[in-house]
Amino acid sequence: MDRIYLDNAATTPVDPRVIKAMEAYFFGSFGNASSPHRFGQEALKALEDARQTIAASIAAKPSEIIFNSGATEGNNHALFGVARAQKDKGKHIIISSIEHHSVLEPAECLGRDGYRLTYIGVDAEGRLDPQRIKEALSKDTVLIAVIHASNEIGTLQPVAEIGKIARAAGVPFLVDATQTVGHEPVNVKVLNADLLSFSAHKFYGPKGMGALYVREKTPLSPYLYGGDQERSRRASTQNVAGAVGMAEALQICIGQMDEERSSQTAMRDRLLTQLPSLIDGVKVNGHPLQRLANNAHFSFEGVDGEALLMSLDMAGFAASMGSACTSGAMEASHVLRSIGLPDELAFGSLRISLGRFNKESDIEYLLEKLPEIIRSLRI
Amino acid sequence: MDRIYLDNAATTPVDPRVIKAMEAYFFGSFGNASSPHRFGQEALKALEDARQTIAASIAAKPSEIIFNSGATEGNNHALFGVARAQKDKGKHIIISSIEHHSVLEPAECLGRDGYRLTYIGVDAEGRLDPQRIKEALSKDTVLIAVIHASNEIGTLQPVAEIGKIARAAGVPFLVDATQTVGHEPVNVKVLNADLLSFSAHKFYGPKGMGALYVREKTPLSPYLYGGDQERSRRASTQNVAGAVGMAEALQICIGQMDEERSSQTAMRDRLLTQLPSLIDGVKVNGHPLQRLANNAHFSFEGVDGEALLMSLDMAGFAASMGSACTSGAMEASHVLRSIGLPDELAFGSLRISLGRFNKESDIEYLLEKLPEIIRSLRI
Repeated sequence: MDRIYLDNAATTPVDPRVIKAMEAYFFGSFGNASSPHRFGQEALKALEDARQTIAASIAAKPSEIIFNSGATEGNNHALFGVARAQKDKGKHIIISSIEHHSVLEPAECLGRDGYRLTYIGVDAEGRLDPQRIKEALSKDTVLIAVIHASNEIGTLQPVAEIGKIARAAGVPFLVDATQTVGHEPVNVKVLNADLLSFSAHKFYGPKGMGALYVREKTPLSPYLYGGDQERSRRASTQNVAGAVGMAEALQICIGQMDEERSSQTAMRDRLLTQLPSLIDGVKVNGHPLQRLANNAHFSFEGVDGEALLMSLDMAGFAASMGSACTSGAMEASHVLRSIGLPDELAFGSLRISLGRFNKESDIEYLLEKLPEIIRSLRI
Repeated sequence: MDRIYLDNAATTPVDPRVIKAMEAYFFGSFGNASSPHRFGQEALKALEDARQTIAASIAAKPSEIIFNSGATEGNNHALFGVARAQKDKGKHIIISSIEHHSVLEPAECLGRDGYRLTYIGVDAEGRLDPQRIKEALSKDTVLIAVIHASNEIGTLQPVAEIGKIARAAGVPFLVDATQTVGHEPVNVKVLNADLLSFSAHKFYGPKGMGALYVREKTPLSPYLYGGDQERSRRASTQNVAGAVGMAEALQICIGQMDEERSSQTAMRDRLLTQLPSLIDGVKVNGHPLQRLANNAHFSFEGVDGEALLMSLDMAGFAASMGSACTSGAMEASHVLRSIGLPDELAFGSLRISLGRFNKESDIEYLLEKLPEIIRSLRI
């Protein structure tokens, strides 16, 4: 039996077309993009072409893209870099209560260094109220950070509206778009984002590669020092093959987005509607409409989530409780707490995240097996 | 005519065996190493096997290896992380005057934050005197940083001796081994290193991948926050294919090291000895014996280094002035200033760095062409 991968929010396979696009930059055109000779210039051209493709895909300018190692670095860079660049302006940061740990933890780190943090909660479906962000603004606010779509429950946030508030207040606005770039329409102008972070491996590109969009004139200190790469904002020999792969991956995603979203939405909705009719004591988490096309999230009464994942794994299904980054953690997810889910339910959670290589038959098979597994775990 | 690549200190092609080793982790075993299911566990096993290989190759324990995006990140992490972890101990840092910019600039950044920096100069051949480091030690010294071999002039430093002094004083010791790992014997125990940074792309591995060795109990704050990867010292989804490629690349290097060093030393020495007899007004830079097997560095009187590189490029040779990271910089290299080279000579410099894919005939051809080019540039 083939194993069925339903954990595309954790990571995705590299699309074979992306592997092919990267190959030339491993051995043939392998130069250091900072070298002035032809090997270097070939590499530089590939890097800048990739930058242009990626910038265009989110309506940014190429000069507004900083290549880096992924969204964790992008989020750390944004938090620490914006704080440092505005240290004379103030020490207040507004973030949602459902940010990814790569935003939460740098914020907490700044909190230990004397920053005041305001966490904005969400409603039972995981949505932020932009008005509450407006109310939290203060003269010393230096950053607002909101995740575009929750990596756990898939709820999409009213980012454009929040961005409008941030822009009017002159406060830099960071959007963690790790779950949306390549999957949902992302336009930095529409979102009013000043910073936007994403990772290639979430959309069929290579791991260890990402980018941070930084709108012109956004105050931001460098995060890696020691070279003039990326306009001196991120030193380090550039990962040319990675950038080429990321661009190819994103271009494929955008070309197929309508198609992929509609097929994934159909599979997702089948799960969201049918599962509750097949099993008792199941709660669907997240927003019914404002949610990622590829995300279905449930909590099961009287079920231990880890045991559930293990049983699913034995049956050939790879899924998640919510976030790969915190697997093994003994605390209930902060996101599930934020939507008011009691810990007993939170610990019985299951995230199904669909991807390019899933088929309708995967869902059929899951709908057949999952109720059996849940029943066996409840005995 | 084939182009001849003589800039292996800037970057190297990915060895075809390394590309092959990585392939399985792009599409087949592509899981997130933090995921508990089998896709994740396969990825985790590959990651930990790679860690073990890399650790063993420098006489470290696997738990002492932090995977990251490369030596620039490693050096930034070491400088900022060691400073932060010891902020109650003091604010004094000792570094050599010939460090790579990825050590110098974080140090200068700390300098702006109130740290006292002591730069230790080198002799005319680029060697540090360990005694001068000993004399610079103070009660508030929190870090000593020394590059294992200069990325410009190739001089190897008496790192083991310096490490002994650092260890006796209880001061963490960072060795930037970017130019030596994979090329020269590197044993963290022999070197008495507490931290040691390196990049895969310098030894036929992929770009965007590196590691920082951190000796047990070395005080070090995390650099990327937001997940418990790398024992919570470096959050971010791990680059499994990159780690596998890095391990394979290093294993190949170690298996062939004696052979490669002796053939490169022969080619290097042919350049170092023959070039001065073929051209007037040439100075060999760096130490005659204590130098990288693959590095030859010259300064030519009355020659503009950039014009020289361009002419070499036109003739099919890719070489460098000294460092890819500062190409385009209008200032003379701090390394060449440190060895007392006048600016006129510094601006007429050429670094030849040999690699796995160079042949004796490359050197013959260079020895034939270079004198012609120098003469034409002097007219």
